[in-house]
Amino acid sequence: MKTRNRVLGESKEITVGSVKLGGANPVAIQSMTNTKTSEVDVTVEQVLELESAGCEIIRVSIPDQESALALANIKSKINIPIVADIHFRAELAVQAINSGADKVRINPGNIGDEAGVRSIIEAAKEAKIPIRIGVNSGSIGKELRSKDLPMSEKLVLSALEYVDLLESMDFFDMALSVKSSSVPDTIDAYRGLAKATRHPLHLGVTESGTLLNGAIRSALGIGVLLEEGIGDTLRVSLAADPVHEVHVAKEILQALGMRAFHPEVIACPTCARCEVDLFSIAEKIEDYLKFSKKTIKVAVMGCVVNGPGEAADADIGLAAGKGKGVIFVQGQSIKTVKEKDFFDELVLAIKGLD
Amino acid sequence: MKTRNRVLGESKEITVGSVKLGGANPVAIQSMTNTKTSEVDVTVEQVLELESAGCEIIRVSIPDQESALALANIKSKINIPIVADIHFRAELAVQAINSGADKVRINPGNIGDEAGVRSIIEAAKEAKIPIRIGVNSGSIGKELRSKDLPMSEKLVLSALEYVDLLESMDFFDMALSVKSSSVPDTIDAYRGLAKATRHPLHLGVTESGTLLNGAIRSALGIGVLLEEGIGDTLRVSLAADPVHEVHVAKEILQALGMRAFHPEVIACPTCARCEVDLFSIAEKIEDYLKFSKKTIKVAVMGCVVNGPGEAADADIGLAAGKGKGVIFVQGQSIKTVKEKDFFDELVLAIKGLD
Repeated sequence: MKTRNRVLGESKEITVGSVKLGGANPVAIQSMTNTKTSEVDVTVEQVLELESAGCEIIRVSIPDQESALALANIKSKINIPIVADIHFRAELAVQAINSGADKVRINPGNIGDEAGVRSIIEAAKEAKIPIRIGVNSGSIGKELRSKDLPMSEKLVLSALEYVDLLESMDFFDMALSVKSSSVPDTIDAYRGLAKATRHPLHLGVTESGTLLNGAIRSALGIGVLLEEGIGDTLRVSLAADPVHEVHVAKEILQALGMRAFHPEVIACPTCARCEVDLFSIAEKIEDYLKFSKKTIKVAVMGCVVNGPGEAADADIGLAAGKGKGVIFVQGQSIKTVKEKDFFDELVLAIKGLD
Repeated sequence: MKTRNRVLGESKEITVGSVKLGGANPVAIQSMTNTKTSEVDVTVEQVLELESAGCEIIRVSIPDQESALALANIKSKINIPIVADIHFRAELAVQAINSGADKVRINPGNIGDEAGVRSIIEAAKEAKIPIRIGVNSGSIGKELRSKDLPMSEKLVLSALEYVDLLESMDFFDMALSVKSSSVPDTIDAYRGLAKATRHPLHLGVTESGTLLNGAIRSALGIGVLLEEGIGDTLRVSLAADPVHEVHVAKEILQALGMRAFHPEVIACPTCARCEVDLFSIAEKIEDYLKFSKKTIKVAVMGCVVNGPGEAADADIGLAAGKGKGVIFVQGQSIKTVKEKDFFDELVLAIKGLD
């Protein structure tokens, strides 16, 4: 498993409820509800759905007092740490902490005054919970915004200014984020931040878009950083059902070899060499393995060029030719099967691994 | 626009029909047909569809003589360079070159003998076309496969062995690829290759999977490399309609700021702060701009936290609150509009940019 790179060193460790972030801990997956937080039942329902998808930390927005109070009730009905997302009003953060928030996320720049920030810090110290300083390109203060600097530098300067503020109040239990809707700005900002601080970093590309485009943009921004050892937790932001955010996050971490969540189905893109309807077999196998937590690799290949090699490299493989194919188990070809039996034989081989 | 990074230097330039690859040229988008190449009409239809999606170089598989001969006919009916994908049989490559292929892709290891490779090289020299040496993790030779080395090193060694072979035949007009279905292996292999050679590199993750997962895996593998200045052309391999391969490729290049193809719609993920149905507005705007080639940025934001900042940073923005919102044009707020008019007013503002 990859952790912080050697040059930058490990980040500090912080504790969010039952989850540890930073240091050598695995990169944790977060998501955010899009229900009204004050509507406890629908919010709990969404959190439970996100939990079973694999969400490890949930964030809820606290736009009003009703939401801050509802947090206690929500927390009692869910199983993962809950983060209160606060803007503008310090008293909502204090209320959310009193309701049992495991972390609060603030952008100190919009809390208004230092006294407000101090009241949040005091409450967090007493509750022994961390704070995320969450700076976004869309909410950088006017003064900094008007400076002639690259956006990535503004993001870093803004975050570090708030780090200094919190540290000057003797508060060190924090995570940081510097998200932008621009992928290059996001990458550059986190690189700058990783050089400047060892506080754990929460990765994300903001407003990344609808499902497919947002997944691509998040994979790029988050992936480039993770691959070079930057990042301790992440949220994929999509304008879509948040369950997709969790799936995309898992896929990013698994593809980079950083965590393993589910079986991997490798399918060839098919071309004129392909003699069978490979898409439908690959999709049936993906569907069959949808809820499986076995971390196996299944290769469904449609030709004699790359097929046997890929099939042999996987835990279970099919190298299909015209009308028949060869099943591989742990690199060994075990039998030749007819096309109509491809799916059943693959399932049989997968079951055989238990 | 990014090109090869300063440490590695620029790659050499090669010419594929009307497209130049390598050097300071933009990273070109490739795709591959999945029709029978010998069925000229359906193949041409797919190529034309891919062309209008933005495909810049098309590859077709040549599994038999009929396909090699069909290539001439296909080429006369399309507008982008065509690459012949050949395995096992040298004479098919020679025939494809005689049919007018603008490049051939071979894996010299499966052509059989040096005489076969030499016949292809001679034909390519005479036709003045380049060759891509395409090594895949699935098709590495048995001898190399059995060595106790990381897969990424095997891929690099295999590619360099073939580079030496072609160069020993006085042939230098080539591109290289070292694809793997593993994202980390792909990244490591291309990094190794970029250090070892200045031949232009064709990027891709093989058998990357179905649409969403394949897009994520390709964005990771290809994106990490492009971001560090490696890669001159790319193909996103998906087990899906190849038109999606082109869309995903464009999104990767645009998100990294390397090329601009289409308007960008930034939408916030919505949360409890959101008072309007933002997804449907964002999707209607995406739909409206689907075929537009204007390289503008439109932000559709649903709250007062990041909304005004993001909306002001875009060419056209909407910062929506309860029942009404503010329209921004080039950073200036120009009017407050009612919720029912959001879409129409955004369209009006977009048209106003012409």
